Amino acid sequence: MDKLYIIKIGGQIIDDEEKLSFFLKEFASLPHKKILVHGGGKLATRLAEQLHLPQQMVEGRRITDRETLKVVTMVYAGWINKTIVAQLQTHNCNAIGLSGADGNIITAKKREAATIDYGFAGDIAAVDANKLQQFLTGADALVLSPITHNGEGQLLNTNADTIAQEVAKAMAGHFEVELIYSFEKAGVLLDAQDESTVIPQITPAYYAELKSKALVFAGMIPKLDNAFRALQAGVHRVVIGDATNIHQIAEGGSGTSIIAS
Amino acid sequence: MDKLYIIKIGGQIIDDEEKLSFFLKEFASLPHKKILVHGGGKLATRLAEQLHLPQQMVEGRRITDRETLKVVTMVYAGWINKTIVAQLQTHNCNAIGLSGADGNIITAKKREAATIDYGFAGDIAAVDANKLQQFLTGADALVLSPITHNGEGQLLNTNADTIAQEVAKAMAGHFEVELIYSFEKAGVLLDAQDESTVIPQITPAYYAELKSKALVFAGMIPKLDNAFRALQAGVHRVVIGDATNIHQIAEGGSGTSIIAS
Repeated sequence: MDKLYIIKIGGQIIDDEEKLSFFLKEFASLPHKKILVHGGGKLATRLAEQLHLPQQMVEGRRITDRETLKVVTMVYAGWINKTIVAQLQTHNCNAIGLSGADGNIITAKKREAATIDYGFAGDIAAVDANKLQQFLTGADALVLSPITHNGEGQLLNTNADTIAQEVAKAMAGHFEVELIYSFEKAGVLLDAQDESTVIPQITPAYYAELKSKALVFAGMIPKLDNAFRALQAGVHRVVIGDATNIHQIAEGGSGTSIIAS
Repeated sequence: MDKLYIIKIGGQIIDDEEKLSFFLKEFASLPHKKILVHGGGKLATRLAEQLHLPQQMVEGRRITDRETLKVVTMVYAGWINKTIVAQLQTHNCNAIGLSGADGNIITAKKREAATIDYGFAGDIAAVDANKLQQFLTGADALVLSPITHNGEGQLLNTNADTIAQEVAKAMAGHFEVELIYSFEKAGVLLDAQDESTVIPQITPAYYAELKSKALVFAGMIPKLDNAFRALQAGVHRVVIGDATNIHQIAEGGSGTSIIAS
């Protein structure tokens, strides 16, 4: 099977023009086919502020009312997605920027309002791996914005980490998938303030221990839960690491590798 | 050769949720492969106002400074493009929303500053017809936003009428292309205030006459000039007509047909 890199970038990388530019150059030069999944939280928050739309975040997720959906669709699927694609083209990486609605590649369901009403937030229902593969045959890379749809005309704001995970799982039947969560830290840290405390490997048993001792930074838990689910679904390897170091991460020499045993 | 409809929508259709929705349903049920090219002027103008960005239009073209480029990319390639694609999916029309940067399908050159500096406005340099055809084999329709790029990482705001025309010319080698400019009027009118004065056919000789007598509404002239250029380049037929009447236009029973002789 051919290798496929699925790389999620987020956090401060998107907001830092220089870092993003460096990352994209490195990304473009990775061998094999690639899928880049991006978020873009801060730009959307800034635009919402300028438009006087109060924003609410609950457990790292944005409450997406009708106007906020417009803002995130504009920022994620519009400005960030097309800026990234145009930059990749300069590095001879022929990229296609897509949302879940394009080619119907990712459908989602509006999250039910239980204790919290997240508004137009989507939980992924289906990923069309054949269609994604079709897109990849004509391209070097796909760039996915975290906007999906419900198949009934409603766009939905969807967590980018989850998109990376679900796409990785769906593509595991077609490729040897390496799922990389890249962000501004060197990996999963034992001490959030100390970049030298990267944990090189996490097994399920070690993860249980880290959680029971509350040694994992709360924001990292959904990422790690996703990582283990991806492995169970056939993804070859999951790595969490520094976006400015993507070649080393891809080669296994940097970041935190999540492994099945 | 298979037939391909290339339809530009603009003007008030985009801003009118109900009309747009009706149009998209009709568009989805047209036979053959289809390309939809959209603008979105008023939404962009409104967002620019909310962000206190003064907007300047010269001869119907927007002066695109750096912040305005962000606004039009967000609105056109983000909100409008994805809203249209999600709606088409509900009508079993599998659509892919693309900008010129995606798959490198349309490259443009930043317009030289002569008497007027249009800023980040692009004049089309090349359309990749093979890539567009490749996209069409896996889809029922492509939805093109008028955002292109220069191949050096710069996104450019590009006239949607010109995109429709250049794409039509490029695709004329692969399909029997019908290029339809649809808007809020029934066609080219002799009296701009009277919808019953639609001119059914315009030949080059008749066009010269209309222009010499100043009988053509000034805003229509670039559309007609484009139409004749498209015919010269092998496009089968060009029609200008009412977006709410797209089936009749496609069948030749409505609108103004521009013909070579």
